[in-house]
Amino acid sequence: MDVQSLQVLLELIQKREIDIPTALERLKKLPFENLHYARIDHHRGLRTGVPEVIFCQGKTIEQIVGIVQSISKITDNIMATRASKEVYDSIKDKVECHYYETARIVLINPKPKELKGNIVVVSAGTSDIPIAEEAAITAEILGSKVNRIFDVGVAGIHRLLNVCDELFSANVVIAVAGMEGALASVVAGLTSCPVIGLPTSMGYGTSFGGVTALLSMLNSCATGISVVNIDNGFGAGFQSHLINQLGVNRE
Amino acid sequence: MDVQSLQVLLELIQKREIDIPTALERLKKLPFENLHYARIDHHRGLRTGVPEVIFCQGKTIEQIVGIVQSISKITDNIMATRASKEVYDSIKDKVECHYYETARIVLINPKPKELKGNIVVVSAGTSDIPIAEEAAITAEILGSKVNRIFDVGVAGIHRLLNVCDELFSANVVIAVAGMEGALASVVAGLTSCPVIGLPTSMGYGTSFGGVTALLSMLNSCATGISVVNIDNGFGAGFQSHLINQLGVNRE
Amino acid sequence: MDVQSLQVLLELIQKREIDIPTALERLKKLPFENLHYARIDHHRGLRTGVPEVIFCQGKTIEQIVGIVQSISKITDNIMATRASKEVYDSIKDKVECHYYETARIVLINPKPKELKGNIVVVSAGTSDIPIAEEAAITAEILGSKVNRIFDVGVAGIHRLLNVCDELFSANVVIAVAGMEGALASVVAGLTSCPVIGLPTSMGYGTSFGGVTALLSMLNSCATGISVVNIDNGFGAGFQSHLINQLGVNRE
Amino acid sequence: MDVQSLQVLLELIQKREIDIPTALERLKKLPFENLHYARIDHHRGLRTGVPEVIFCQGKTIEQIVGIVQSISKITDNIMATRASKEVYDSIKDKVECHYYETARIVLINPKPKELKGNIVVVSAGTSDIPIAEEAAITAEILGSKVNRIFDVGVAGIHRLLNVCDELFSANVVIAVAGMEGALASVVAGLTSCPVIGLPTSMGYGTSFGGVTALLSMLNSCATGISVVNIDNGFGAGFQSHLINQLGVNRE
Amino acid sequence: MDVQSLQVLLELIQKREIDIPTALERLKKLPFENLHYARIDHHRGLRTGVPEVIFCQGKTIEQIVGIVQSISKITDNIMATRASKEVYDSIKDKVECHYYETARIVLINPKPKELKGNIVVVSAGTSDIPIAEEAAITAEILGSKVNRIFDVGVAGIHRLLNVCDELFSANVVIAVAGMEGALASVVAGLTSCPVIGLPTSMGYGTSFGGVTALLSMLNSCATGISVVNIDNGFGAGFQSHLINQLGVNRE
Amino acid sequence: MDVQSLQVLLELIQKREIDIPTALERLKKLPFENLHYARIDHHRGLRTGVPEVIFCQGKTIEQIVGIVQSISKITDNIMATRASKEVYDSIKDKVECHYYETARIVLINPKPKELKGNIVVVSAGTSDIPIAEEAAITAEILGSKVNRIFDVGVAGIHRLLNVCDELFSANVVIAVAGMEGALASVVAGLTSCPVIGLPTSMGYGTSFGGVTALLSMLNSCATGISVVNIDNGFGAGFQSHLINQLGVNRE
Amino acid sequence: MDVQSLQVLLELIQKREIDIPTALERLKKLPFENLHYARIDHHRGLRTGVPEVIFCQGKTIEQIVGIVQSISKITDNIMATRASKEVYDSIKDKVECHYYETARIVLINPKPKELKGNIVVVSAGTSDIPIAEEAAITAEILGSKVNRIFDVGVAGIHRLLNVCDELFSANVVIAVAGMEGALASVVAGLTSCPVIGLPTSMGYGTSFGGVTALLSMLNSCATGISVVNIDNGFGAGFQSHLINQLGVNRE
Amino acid sequence: MDVQSLQVLLELIQKREIDIPTALERLKKLPFENLHYARIDHHRGLRTGVPEVIFCQGKTIEQIVGIVQSISKITDNIMATRASKEVYDSIKDKVECHYYETARIVLINPKPKELKGNIVVVSAGTSDIPIAEEAAITAEILGSKVNRIFDVGVAGIHRLLNVCDELFSANVVIAVAGMEGALASVVAGLTSCPVIGLPTSMGYGTSFGGVTALLSMLNSCATGISVVNIDNGFGAGFQSHLINQLGVNRE
Repeated sequence: MDVQSLQVLLELIQKREIDIPTALERLKKLPFENLHYARIDHHRGLRTGVPEVIFCQGKTIEQIVGIVQSISKITDNIMATRASKEVYDSIKDKVECHYYETARIVLINPKPKELKGNIVVVSAGTSDIPIAEEAAITAEILGSKVNRIFDVGVAGIHRLLNVCDELFSANVVIAVAGMEGALASVVAGLTSCPVIGLPTSMGYGTSFGGVTALLSMLNSCATGISVVNIDNGFGAGFQSHLINQLGVNRE
Repeated sequence: MDVQSLQVLLELIQKREIDIPTALERLKKLPFENLHYARIDHHRGLRTGVPEVIFCQGKTIEQIVGIVQSISKITDNIMATRASKEVYDSIKDKVECHYYETARIVLINPKPKELKGNIVVVSAGTSDIPIAEEAAITAEILGSKVNRIFDVGVAGIHRLLNVCDELFSANVVIAVAGMEGALASVVAGLTSCPVIGLPTSMGYGTSFGGVTALLSMLNSCATGISVVNIDNGFGAGFQSHLINQLGVNRE
Repeated sequence: MDVQSLQVLLELIQKREIDIPTALERLKKLPFENLHYARIDHHRGLRTGVPEVIFCQGKTIEQIVGIVQSISKITDNIMATRASKEVYDSIKDKVECHYYETARIVLINPKPKELKGNIVVVSAGTSDIPIAEEAAITAEILGSKVNRIFDVGVAGIHRLLNVCDELFSANVVIAVAGMEGALASVVAGLTSCPVIGLPTSMGYGTSFGGVTALLSMLNSCATGISVVNIDNGFGAGFQSHLINQLGVNRE
Repeated sequence: MDVQSLQVLLELIQKREIDIPTALERLKKLPFENLHYARIDHHRGLRTGVPEVIFCQGKTIEQIVGIVQSISKITDNIMATRASKEVYDSIKDKVECHYYETARIVLINPKPKELKGNIVVVSAGTSDIPIAEEAAITAEILGSKVNRIFDVGVAGIHRLLNVCDELFSANVVIAVAGMEGALASVVAGLTSCPVIGLPTSMGYGTSFGGVTALLSMLNSCATGISVVNIDNGFGAGFQSHLINQLGVNRE
Repeated sequence: MDVQSLQVLLELIQKREIDIPTALERLKKLPFENLHYARIDHHRGLRTGVPEVIFCQGKTIEQIVGIVQSISKITDNIMATRASKEVYDSIKDKVECHYYETARIVLINPKPKELKGNIVVVSAGTSDIPIAEEAAITAEILGSKVNRIFDVGVAGIHRLLNVCDELFSANVVIAVAGMEGALASVVAGLTSCPVIGLPTSMGYGTSFGGVTALLSMLNSCATGISVVNIDNGFGAGFQSHLINQLGVNRE
Repeated sequence: MDVQSLQVLLELIQKREIDIPTALERLKKLPFENLHYARIDHHRGLRTGVPEVIFCQGKTIEQIVGIVQSISKITDNIMATRASKEVYDSIKDKVECHYYETARIVLINPKPKELKGNIVVVSAGTSDIPIAEEAAITAEILGSKVNRIFDVGVAGIHRLLNVCDELFSANVVIAVAGMEGALASVVAGLTSCPVIGLPTSMGYGTSFGGVTALLSMLNSCATGISVVNIDNGFGAGFQSHLINQLGVNRE
Repeated sequence: MDVQSLQVLLELIQKREIDIPTALERLKKLPFENLHYARIDHHRGLRTGVPEVIFCQGKTIEQIVGIVQSISKITDNIMATRASKEVYDSIKDKVECHYYETARIVLINPKPKELKGNIVVVSAGTSDIPIAEEAAITAEILGSKVNRIFDVGVAGIHRLLNVCDELFSANVVIAVAGMEGALASVVAGLTSCPVIGLPTSMGYGTSFGGVTALLSMLNSCATGISVVNIDNGFGAGFQSHLINQLGVNRE
Repeated sequence: MDVQSLQVLLELIQKREIDIPTALERLKKLPFENLHYARIDHHRGLRTGVPEVIFCQGKTIEQIVGIVQSISKITDNIMATRASKEVYDSIKDKVECHYYETARIVLINPKPKELKGNIVVVSAGTSDIPIAEEAAITAEILGSKVNRIFDVGVAGIHRLLNVCDELFSANVVIAVAGMEGALASVVAGLTSCPVIGLPTSMGYGTSFGGVTALLSMLNSCATGISVVNIDNGFGAGFQSHLINQLGVNRE
């Protein structure tokens, strides 16, 4: 459409029905951003196959249903994150979808992909599992193979050492931990692949809703760690998928 | 040595000079950690070729010289980070080395590697360059090809749009910014590769020594960002190298 | 009344029924503040036509009803901000009023004004809309024309570029954003009019209830930004109206 | 130049030396950002007459001299802010310039403008003067008339009441204060024009380098205040100039 | 009892039934703290007539009832602070008491005192009244005369100036304010008596539950202010009573 | 099992069915961590007799019931901490257990131990008792004798002095306090044994949920204090038990 | 002068050279603030005899000298606080003055007053003495009798108990402490007069430059405490003098 | 002296030169605190043999020399902590003393004790050594045997596992770490004795001068940890000595 209007303009020039100063002026006013939009959009689509994502927290049920109904007509593998059971119940009869309850993710118009590569998700405690699952499910929906290793906190270091070989074989590791968040440092000390620290809000008192775990991961004495926001399982899963993708062709 | 003592033990078993229960008991008491050490070390060495790194900040000149002299006999490509000119002057006559002054890195026993892959380092302002350079030089020493795009802050968004193609071709982008750190979000919105946010301590007042930039990057509304500590150019360079490595074989 | 007592005093002087030292003494003791009150009040009323505003948060329904009933007898266009549906239901039968539900504003004794000038309200995400609406409705009630451009976050910079011309034509722009709040910087980099940053409490983890967005806006690398308190849609709308008013006569 | 290359392309079309599909392809690849750049730049230039600004803090003398020498060949009224005496001494023999010592601003290639409108800068204490001056000089360089009223803190409210008429006549007021920053609230309570709060780092203990003044201004119970970063005299002066400009034609 | 045992010991000495070294040894071991207790307690009682105070927040209804029943047998004028309606309902049939609902204080075994001196309680907004009342009622129960001046925030400075004479006549002023807490500074600038700043948790966003008001009061540019904890109406009332008492004899 | 596989390997060596280099290689690959696990586990069990602990906060009732049923078949004296009445009601019919309601601890398969040594738990206020009880019950379940001294805050220093002798006789003191947490300093100034500071979240306003008490204890001017997390009664009880154990044999 | 112009106006009325409506209009425009100024100023001067105070921190030597020379011609007992030795050396030859070095106060045109009442300044450690002295000297210059009791920290509670009688006799106590600041609570628990908490920045690590001591004092479990800013010896001395004055006539 | 005056009183009773009511009255007024002082002092001396400690930071050289000269006449083994080389140089010729330079401790009138028990000090990095040494030297001066294990950070977990046996044999472990402070958790997970976490200020950016390490240790998922202030080597050494003493008799 933008291209069409551009073509029309060029034809007018060719036919000398419009002079060059006028054409220049019009070109300047052409909504270049639309070209821009198309270009970027196409680029992202081609390379990452990233699905649409609806962040449900802070939206009303009505807003979510509206967005879901509108997007679901166009595309597949739409993720609704931070989706409560109530959200799922509101849309399950309107669109084809699957609910990952622990991860609080609804997948709409699911089109399974072949899972590739190797992301390891390690988590410290039972309470961290919902966030760890949000990361794992996100990566799986995007097309990455995920290996879950839960409940291997540093207070019992032997449990972590027991899974060394699994850590060694990963393209990328997501280290999920609340409280003091030391898991990320120990894991990064053991492995040689990139580690994504995923702090959780588990804890009390001076855990400050995950801030301590976050700070701990940011200040890791081990190399090869970068960190996402507290409880941002989606972000960790997404970033890890991007990294894992780079390594997939190598296998 | 540990292997030797182990071998002696096994020979005793073979010669039946020691019975199996006694051998089992001794094996349990063997310093398994030494085996452990060897294994991990070997593993890391094989896969990442990570050099030794000396973090100079908080160490005395005497300590640094001592460490450098001891390590430089054994290995190549030793990095001394956060190294002042004074540190360099203290070691330049004792070992073969090169000083990257802006990046504050001394490379000892330099053994150039072929640079591979594609890491793009974008930075927002002139004052961010030392940290951006620390990231870039780190990645180059480790063997990654780095493309520097400096002074493309979001206040002049057109400058950033001008380099879109370079961003599109990266395996990983390091976004370096102080003040409000919005660069990471905008870059991640434009590209589809992993972005490592590297907040700097540039700014004043409520920049709080980089905390604002860090928080901004952690809360990015764009997907595909993870973050390292404030001014941690080394960490961003290291993490990016690990990610870039995954993509190298693909090319 | 004050003026009357003053007039009486002056007449006494004129009639020489009171000597000048006594008059001087009385004048010093006159409640100058009442004159003061009148003067300022008049001044504000003349220039800004600012309505009475009732901030409902932290007040009981009873208190609000009482205040509304008392003020509504005297004046028009009274705004009740942060007004829940429950507040509206409690007063709708007692006074003439209109409820802007999304903006949580009740307008009492509405007297529509001609809307003038041009304030653009841009917001980053769906969740920011209630605060953006509070700003927009406030400015409209005060008499400013408002152009709403919602859901143009920096993660998809093309959407923002698409509305450049609308930004260029504004007298003042209100940039509404939670999370990392980068929208204000990018908007201020694109436009040349004053930008009012309005951080919202949208987000989680290290968004710290809007503090990150606020800090980000305060540390903007772009020029021409000033900022109001988190979620202070009323304040942003009010400040923007004052600024817009300055430009109205120019058109 | 970009326009030239575009013109050449259009002429080729007109002369039919290039067909339309090829032209379309070339247009898509044209660095649209350069058009973009020109457009925005032109737009800003026309409307605001904003000079180039060099933020000296965090840059080396060498970097500053280099930037100054390069920009000063092209344009006038270049501001170097946060410029120490040492910076001025390094450039004063190389370019034509004037040093505002208290404001720490060097104006390079000064081209005086007619000062218009009315910005009032009120400040609370003697120690706030450097920041107040940075705001005032910035606005004056940009072309706004500035009325300075210093040392009118709220601890002696009578001093402030004494200057009410001057406050009433302003298009915009900059309220500069450290410590508890209450000046902004009291001023905004007195006037009906927009007030820009400019917190300073003056104080000790729990003033936290200006954070208390900033928070106080953000939480003002008065309407019509927006705030800039701590000690950001330049930002307050710039924002106030933009607002003042809107009112200039009205006079 | 302690005195008795001491008396017995002294009689034994007098009767020479115990020698002096033994008596010395016993005296060292005597529970001196009990003497201590009596002394301090007596001292406090004589000088301040301070009633027993039960801080209800964080205690169960059962605990409160238990404490009230036990203390009410011994003494009068017992204050139960932060007492909900539920607390009052639980004790009103068991003891003679009066409930100050706004102040959330139950006075048990009320014994009215003659109110003396002059404490002025000024507050900024309607929402601050419960805390202001807690301060006022506390001081009245303790025996101080209190003059309440509510709703005189600094955004309308004329209202405050109107009550100057009342402020001038106070022995001590309690300035109650949330949001930016500027009231304390302005009041202390107007009066010459001690001012007790009482920050409240009213506000939102960066008011941080009263922290901004507290910081503002601590950093006041006016002299003669000291501050109590956020929402600590009891503490402000108590401290003011102690100060007022000093001035009572002067009248 | 691991031991079995190791034994099989050794027998193969003994029978010369495998040569020593091959055996060495296999030994290096043996999951040493399992040996490790056994060793540490055994070690801890032998020395401390620490029971299994289930931290209930952040776990669902279903998860807790599942864990309890699985562990309770294997071992005794299992503690479930931060256990609500609802948790207790869910498991009381499934396992033998006792509920310490104030301490919020369920003890499963209780096997009373002889209580030894002397831990003194002092607490400042009535509201601190639940946390103080959590510490006391924890230490008692582990086998330490505990002396509770409650309601001895520093505002009435005589009450504390009254119990000096009890403090003097302790192996370790736990000082439990919210608000300003001064109790720990005063206690440590009186005694000569190790003091564990246990800050509680009691208070309001700037108590910041226990942060003030924590900071106060960390900055004690008295020697011999170390501190645990806010409200971490379990941690204080556990640490004190370990310390008390060291002193038990001395008695 | 204002009075003169007022008198002229009244004479014109008396002489009927001006009619009453015109006179009324002029009266409204008279700078009432000047009357206001005189009134407040007079009031303060009469009641408190407060001297002029120059806060030297953040002012240049030149500014201080200028202010001193100008004020010293008009009034006596001018205090220059936070005055370094360098400040004193710059003014000692220009005006009659005395330097209190520990307190960092220069007293200019000293006119000794009779010291009355009883302020007790207690401090915890040797390092707190400069701040304690600033408070004590301030109060003495203003005319209060001060009793210094230094080095009585709570870690050795017996030292504090030893001075109980001196505490009991005070009109007001200033409790000076850094680190955990517990001194204020213990002192307020012992005495029945108002206690002013004066936190100092002594300490390290989590003392956060006095914030811990401040928070501790604000959260005191003892009644009768109010607090000033960290290291604000002047403020504590001033407030205490105002309080002490109230009690002076009682003696 | 107090005892003497007490003895005189008792003799008067015995001689019936004073009657019992008068004696009782006098006894109540006797400075019981002096008895108190003696008792506590004696008690502490007997049980802990704690030396006098001079905290040098924040004191002038003159103050330190004065204190040292006065105390050194009375007692042995006086510790001056945080003592710079300059402090040592100022006292080394005046008293017999030894300087532990790394630990920044001067020991005055050294009287070596037999070292008993077993404290293990583990530290994470080279930069932590000064603080680790402060802890170790403190404990040794007090009479505890100390085993130093430095440079065993969690990034190379094998180094820590290598020293397991040494950790197992400790009475108490001091875990010294800056940055993310994970060492304490891992050590406490490995051992069964009490662990004292000693956070250091090593790090940059979000290490916040040791706050991150402190928070990490406070939130440890391992049991048996308590924590001291940042860089408080003296406190950790002192506390560990008290704990170690309890275990000494067991050996």
